[in-house]
Amino acid sequence: MELTDVFKEKRTLITGGMGFIGSNLAHRLVSLGARVSIVDSGDSSMGANPFNLADILNQVDLKVADLRDDQVIERMIAGQEYLFNLAGQASHAGSMEDPLADLEINARCQLSIVEACRKHNPGIKIIYAGTRQSYGQVRQLPIDESHPIDPVDYNGISKRTGELYHLVAHRIFGLNACSLRMTNVYGPRMRCRDGHLNFIGLWIRRIIEGKPIPVYGQGTQIRDPNFVDDVIEAMLLAAASPISNGQVYNLGGLEAVRLIDLADRMIETAGGGSRVLKPFPEARRRIDIGDYQANFSKIQRQLGWQPRVALTEGLSRTIDFFRQNQEHYW
Amino acid sequence: MELTDVFKEKRTLITGGMGFIGSNLAHRLVSLGARVSIVDSGDSSMGANPFNLADILNQVDLKVADLRDDQVIERMIAGQEYLFNLAGQASHAGSMEDPLADLEINARCQLSIVEACRKHNPGIKIIYAGTRQSYGQVRQLPIDESHPIDPVDYNGISKRTGELYHLVAHRIFGLNACSLRMTNVYGPRMRCRDGHLNFIGLWIRRIIEGKPIPVYGQGTQIRDPNFVDDVIEAMLLAAASPISNGQVYNLGGLEAVRLIDLADRMIETAGGGSRVLKPFPEARRRIDIGDYQANFSKIQRQLGWQPRVALTEGLSRTIDFFRQNQEHYW
Repeated sequence: MELTDVFKEKRTLITGGMGFIGSNLAHRLVSLGARVSIVDSGDSSMGANPFNLADILNQVDLKVADLRDDQVIERMIAGQEYLFNLAGQASHAGSMEDPLADLEINARCQLSIVEACRKHNPGIKIIYAGTRQSYGQVRQLPIDESHPIDPVDYNGISKRTGELYHLVAHRIFGLNACSLRMTNVYGPRMRCRDGHLNFIGLWIRRIIEGKPIPVYGQGTQIRDPNFVDDVIEAMLLAAASPISNGQVYNLGGLEAVRLIDLADRMIETAGGGSRVLKPFPEARRRIDIGDYQANFSKIQRQLGWQPRVALTEGLSRTIDFFRQNQEHYW
Repeated sequence: MELTDVFKEKRTLITGGMGFIGSNLAHRLVSLGARVSIVDSGDSSMGANPFNLADILNQVDLKVADLRDDQVIERMIAGQEYLFNLAGQASHAGSMEDPLADLEINARCQLSIVEACRKHNPGIKIIYAGTRQSYGQVRQLPIDESHPIDPVDYNGISKRTGELYHLVAHRIFGLNACSLRMTNVYGPRMRCRDGHLNFIGLWIRRIIEGKPIPVYGQGTQIRDPNFVDDVIEAMLLAAASPISNGQVYNLGGLEAVRLIDLADRMIETAGGGSRVLKPFPEARRRIDIGDYQANFSKIQRQLGWQPRVALTEGLSRTIDFFRQNQEHYW
């Protein structure tokens, strides 16, 4: 299957398309010849960055609007063939500070989207951006999709709720929806301003700025960073195949590393930098999930996906991007 | 442990206390010498019935208010020692008709309650009314608490979301909360007007009215009806013990029966009546969970609870109650 054949001229909608993953997806869909519409709140604290779309602004239809307005949703989904549903509140710490907003964005908006699709555009295919956070405290590694859902923070709850609305609407109404549970995604266009949405962007920024990388605790936690191009490939494969309908798939990176080794790898790749161990902030420690490594054999088996970009290669491309574009991300 | 010693003079709050389970609990708490406050929206479609509290109205502090107003919540929980958190939207079919209201009542309100408690009354003990509906399609019988959570309707999602907020707040903030996952609860003061919230009440009404009981499909579905007094005993035991903090417990009845046998048992107990097989309505069939029987050995082991009222005895007491009080329930 050639993805160009699948998406050429297709009407695709990306919610949250001004953010990190959404904007990378928009670039890829434009290059595949798709007709790309984007709706995004433009809220930088949620990850929106206008520069992410600057070079394709004439090739996409961008609407800045709040998806909490149900009319916006209905208008945007009309006539679309694919919905890449990436809008969301992704900050774990933020969900603890403003849990009601977290629930509204990640659950109520998602319910509105699902209901609007099944009523007004029942043939649309939806790819929902799920998260490994819903698993909560990890019981055994690597984690497959049958691992208990036992989130440790409010964000893990609201994201799971949004996912369940997609799955139940598939079961009851036959909605063509699936969820990809993502782990630490990294790459060009990610948020680097602070550690609010992810730590990798902040680390890269500090390396480029010549400041030490803060590593919490002893840095022994395991993570499996997933390069954004690989994540987008998974979204496109899931969109292209009816096999994915009603399914949940884990995504994961090629390599699982201790955070301290990830820091060292970054420093090595960047050709310089340093790291410093810091005590785990209490608010972070309480919602930490421990080690994480995805078992992604289900999507490998069913859709033929696997991560292809090695960690060092991905870090190198990410650091290069931000060295060239830092004024838009710091 | 004598429950009178535990609850005498204790300040207890029941949300949804005008409803079926809440009002039976209020009667029991009054008889144990507790100080009982109740907040209820008074919405009869959600199960509220003023007659449920008529005989103890002078012994409880009843406030009719909508818990969707956060100020109501904060005011009501101040100074309370126990919160029996029964307010909710319990209709499966209703959740499919108005899913946004279902989410707001069962998830957003619960989040507000949990947040208000952990901020303003962190020592309070909370008993949350969970539901077997969250398990969804049953994979093996009897179901214990480790069964996957895979709801088949929107109500199963929202109730699970409300439950998760309690459990996560226990984990992160040490909130003394637990959840009891209830199966078909029946008994005096249940809603009999229609089959909107439960089918047992409707069946009893039709028997008393001399009309045939409608049994869907072949009536081979298995259910384990739980008499309301047993459910209340479980809530009190869970409230009384710190062992329950952060835990989820299944409740279940003494006997699991096919629905057709339940109908026959009712007819026999009532001394007359008839039943008629009806095709499963499509909207119901789609959200049906199949057979259900709880494994309640966890609460038996940890809190010493078990159902005590035999099905025939429970049905007999329920039918007697409604024969005497039908004008308030039809």
